Amino acid sequence: MASAACCGALRGFLFEYDTPRIVLIKSRKVGLVNRAVQLAILAYVIGWVFVWEKGYQETDNVVSSVTTKVKGITVTNTSELGLRVWDVADYVIPPQGENTLFIMTNLIMTLNQTQGYCPELPDKTTVCNSSKDCAAGYIGTHSNGVQTGKCRKYSTSVKTCEIYAWCPVENDTHLPKPAFLKDAENFTILVKNNIWYPKFNFTRRNILPSISTVYLKTCIYDPKTDPFCPIFRIRQIVEAAGQNFQEMAVEGGVMGVQINWNCDLDKPASYCVPKYTFRRLDNKDSDHTVSPGYNFRFAKYYKDASGTDSRTLIKAYGIRFDIMVFGKAGKFDIIPTMINIGSGLALFGVATVLCDIVVLYFMKKRYYYREKKYKYVEDYELGASETYGTQS
Amino acid sequence: MASAACCGALRGFLFEYDTPRIVLIKSRKVGLVNRAVQLAILAYVIGWVFVWEKGYQETDNVVSSVTTKVKGITVTNTSELGLRVWDVADYVIPPQGENTLFIMTNLIMTLNQTQGYCPELPDKTTVCNSSKDCAAGYIGTHSNGVQTGKCRKYSTSVKTCEIYAWCPVENDTHLPKPAFLKDAENFTILVKNNIWYPKFNFTRRNILPSISTVYLKTCIYDPKTDPFCPIFRIRQIVEAAGQNFQEMAVEGGVMGVQINWNCDLDKPASYCVPKYTFRRLDNKDSDHTVSPGYNFRFAKYYKDASGTDSRTLIKAYGIRFDIMVFGKAGKFDIIPTMINIGSGLALFGVATVLCDIVVLYFMKKRYYYREKKYKYVEDYELGASETYGTQS
Amino acid sequence: MASAACCGALRGFLFEYDTPRIVLIKSRKVGLVNRAVQLAILAYVIGWVFVWEKGYQETDNVVSSVTTKVKGITVTNTSELGLRVWDVADYVIPPQGENTLFIMTNLIMTLNQTQGYCPELPDKTTVCNSSKDCAAGYIGTHSNGVQTGKCRKYSTSVKTCEIYAWCPVENDTHLPKPAFLKDAENFTILVKNNIWYPKFNFTRRNILPSISTVYLKTCIYDPKTDPFCPIFRIRQIVEAAGQNFQEMAVEGGVMGVQINWNCDLDKPASYCVPKYTFRRLDNKDSDHTVSPGYNFRFAKYYKDASGTDSRTLIKAYGIRFDIMVFGKAGKFDIIPTMINIGSGLALFGVATVLCDIVVLYFMKKRYYYREKKYKYVEDYELGASETYGTQS
Repeated sequence: MASAACCGALRGFLFEYDTPRIVLIKSRKVGLVNRAVQLAILAYVIGWVFVWEKGYQETDNVVSSVTTKVKGITVTNTSELGLRVWDVADYVIPPQGENTLFIMTNLIMTLNQTQGYCPELPDKTTVCNSSKDCAAGYIGTHSNGVQTGKCRKYSTSVKTCEIYAWCPVENDTHLPKPAFLKDAENFTILVKNNIWYPKFNFTRRNILPSISTVYLKTCIYDPKTDPFCPIFRIRQIVEAAGQNFQEMAVEGGVMGVQINWNCDLDKPASYCVPKYTFRRLDNKDSDHTVSPGYNFRFAKYYKDASGTDSRTLIKAYGIRFDIMVFGKAGKFDIIPTMINIGSGLALFGVATVLCDIVVLYFMKKRYYYREKKYKYVEDYELGASETYGTQS
Repeated sequence: MASAACCGALRGFLFEYDTPRIVLIKSRKVGLVNRAVQLAILAYVIGWVFVWEKGYQETDNVVSSVTTKVKGITVTNTSELGLRVWDVADYVIPPQGENTLFIMTNLIMTLNQTQGYCPELPDKTTVCNSSKDCAAGYIGTHSNGVQTGKCRKYSTSVKTCEIYAWCPVENDTHLPKPAFLKDAENFTILVKNNIWYPKFNFTRRNILPSISTVYLKTCIYDPKTDPFCPIFRIRQIVEAAGQNFQEMAVEGGVMGVQINWNCDLDKPASYCVPKYTFRRLDNKDSDHTVSPGYNFRFAKYYKDASGTDSRTLIKAYGIRFDIMVFGKAGKFDIIPTMINIGSGLALFGVATVLCDIVVLYFMKKRYYYREKKYKYVEDYELGASETYGTQS
Repeated sequence: MASAACCGALRGFLFEYDTPRIVLIKSRKVGLVNRAVQLAILAYVIGWVFVWEKGYQETDNVVSSVTTKVKGITVTNTSELGLRVWDVADYVIPPQGENTLFIMTNLIMTLNQTQGYCPELPDKTTVCNSSKDCAAGYIGTHSNGVQTGKCRKYSTSVKTCEIYAWCPVENDTHLPKPAFLKDAENFTILVKNNIWYPKFNFTRRNILPSISTVYLKTCIYDPKTDPFCPIFRIRQIVEAAGQNFQEMAVEGGVMGVQINWNCDLDKPASYCVPKYTFRRLDNKDSDHTVSPGYNFRFAKYYKDASGTDSRTLIKAYGIRFDIMVFGKAGKFDIIPTMINIGSGLALFGVATVLCDIVVLYFMKKRYYYREKKYKYVEDYELGASETYGTQS
């Protein structure tokens, strides 16, 4: 008996088909409203979700590698340093990096520093009249060394606390203006970028397969005429970000070279190309920043014949170029497609709910329609006219 | 005739409205259960999905650029090196980088190395009694040079294989303890971070617009009193990660400065602020790691008057600070909203399925309700009481 | 009266349960088709979405920190430089970085450069016969300095324009082949990687907790026998990417060490392990690239007794290793689960739509079935047989 009941249930499950019973109301108004709402939902799902936002695609983020190379020479001639040529090994510090590249445009050079005792650079906290103003062992936030407690002559007009430091101390109060290496604006940067979308195992280089070596030897990037040439002139990068190179070169700054790889992998690979934009990353507004521009100190160390250490301290101002590679690839995948189709189907239910409300609560014949739609079932005992077994 | 049929179908499609027929069962129990389940689903969709998890928002990852600047001086006095001051150019190696910053806290300095023949540092593989123990041309994993095959006196008590290398070889068995540059704990790091959400074209800096230059000149970061000051004291960074600076300074380590930018772009931009946390990234546990702490070797090269190359080899131990910027921005977008609404609507169907099961299989009046809900349709021939054309 | 109406509506809302009326058609064909379509949808939702693609999980991207250490010694013996040993401080430039590591394998060294006047390196644009061919002040794209306007003898056979530059100029036309530091293939790189999934606050190191220090002191990575040893031999990295080390070492190149962390955080943490793959990132094909291989110039600066600057310019060719860490973690989350369940439920509606179309338009008894499913409601006035109040 149990197996017969079981078989019966199974037969019912497999060989019966249930479908909801429908009331078909012939009404122009409601019919048109219903179709209009359904059309709007369909337009949203197909037009916006699938065509515009590519909702049928799975996405992946880019994994990137960048190499850069600078070319350019400049010559300076000052009384202090004399005639001097600057090439790549002189102004690119450090000589190689991955995503960033620093080109020195201005500098303050302090030659022949050796460790010893000398007067500190004058400012509010270091100027003194006598030893009472200087505390031995004190190191301030902007000190160049540790105070000894003595007060010494810095120049004919001012005395400052003596310190033990690399002497003579650096005097960074007067920055060369215009920038010392102002011809750096003509230097060029070659950017080679290799990207990979791991999920789709798709790789691409910014030197596109259609570009020949002959073209690469002489081209310069231009957003209209040469949008895929990977060689950029520094002045153009700065100007494309709405900045003035000579202004920026004095105190330095940080420029972002943004390479955007938004690729639709359902299209041929040749459509996957980089898009370059440029943006200044540091804050020009000196009212809400500290240490404006971009600079850092480094030193070249020497030893003389007697073994004494000496160094040349260089406070280097310049433009740091951050190559920022980002982007998403999209490729057809069944899951986002089904999620969006499923949600879209569920939304069709909204059309029915809306029209039901109109038909059952707002139309003249609403009570009539309610009778057709609803079947009221009372409790067993109360429904005298309904008897067990009557089909309806 | 075809066009008439076509027109009829079109008229039916546009001007008819179909709505499912419903059985309304008046039962307190089932009614309440149904509403309770629907309320739970509504609470989940509105409360959790939309309010808590912001399911109506599209998200984007941050694209970031970081610059750092260290300030600080320290003085050491040893018999070997004498009185010596160390400033930024001496202990920050390399002088500029993007996301990482290394500050030397301890070192082993080997002065005046020149290329030549000398005995190797004693260890299990290099100690020898005679030339038979040394193989000419052999280079071991931890060798400082290539073996010549001879066995030489390293000190009065031990002999080791001779090598051709930069001599004298470095002896890194005894690391200064406490750390040589222990006052590095007072150094400060200024971190300037510029972030960008490309999808929403929203940029922000960690030096917020509300912060003035005057404040920036003297503030130090504190999680409670100065949470937006971008200047950090090194000892505080290390302690905030639950570490002891002096302990860490001996062998070095890697500290992560995590800047979290989780921004809700539906709110005003002033709510988008960075959140700093600190974490030690290297493994302190020396039982499951190799090369504990953080160190690397670099050299300063010199040439004497005769043109002979010499160098000072420095094994630098210190703390590398990795500035890790991450975060997501969210902004209202119609598609995730519609997906979640659609899925929510679909889930309402669960309430009906659940209550159907209760009503049709578990209640006393289940057969009665089944009659009201279902209309059994037999095969055409078998259903004698049903005749073509009878509406029901 | 209003409150009574209100109460009545509320009572109706809470204590009534509405369920759609169903037509149960006993038909083997349609029943089986219906169940088959529903089974397919169920298999898709459970099998593909939940089990295969883990649609019930929320994902997060990895935040990573990398440190590297190279070990290895090599010796060279040439007439120009003599017997020379190269250790880590000599060939890793710069000495520390985060994600990238450069190992020099080949070089062109120009010793004792001082600033002065000398003839330019001969090429198409610099060869001259007389001063008329040289323009004073001209700096070409590939110049080593600024032209003075004179034409000088470069060698017995050719004359080139004189320039003010670091003299003598570098001659990079003949690259050593095989690579100068060809034994670099035996060097080893230790990679320590710390990853973090912020959303789940889960951290992990590539030196797994199960690995002991003893093992780490001697192991070398092998994809089959030692897949979790973090020490890599350079030649193996290059060969694993399908490249030949000696070929690559001549002009240099860029190798990607890809560490993939795809973790299912619903499983125990011990299942979260890194997967290493290797890929050559630069373009070997010299027809569609510029500046093939990987090289950069750096200099070592010296000062002689008289204070004159001199430098050794090194054009370093080598392999740059980019450690690219990426991956996603997944963990159960109620929202993607509900979205996928909701969409799946909505898709079940497709089964009904499909079978409806079959039953109502293609089967023999379609008119009969249509009668059972649909109830046509005409306009109020036209439906004479239907009278207000008749339940059906």
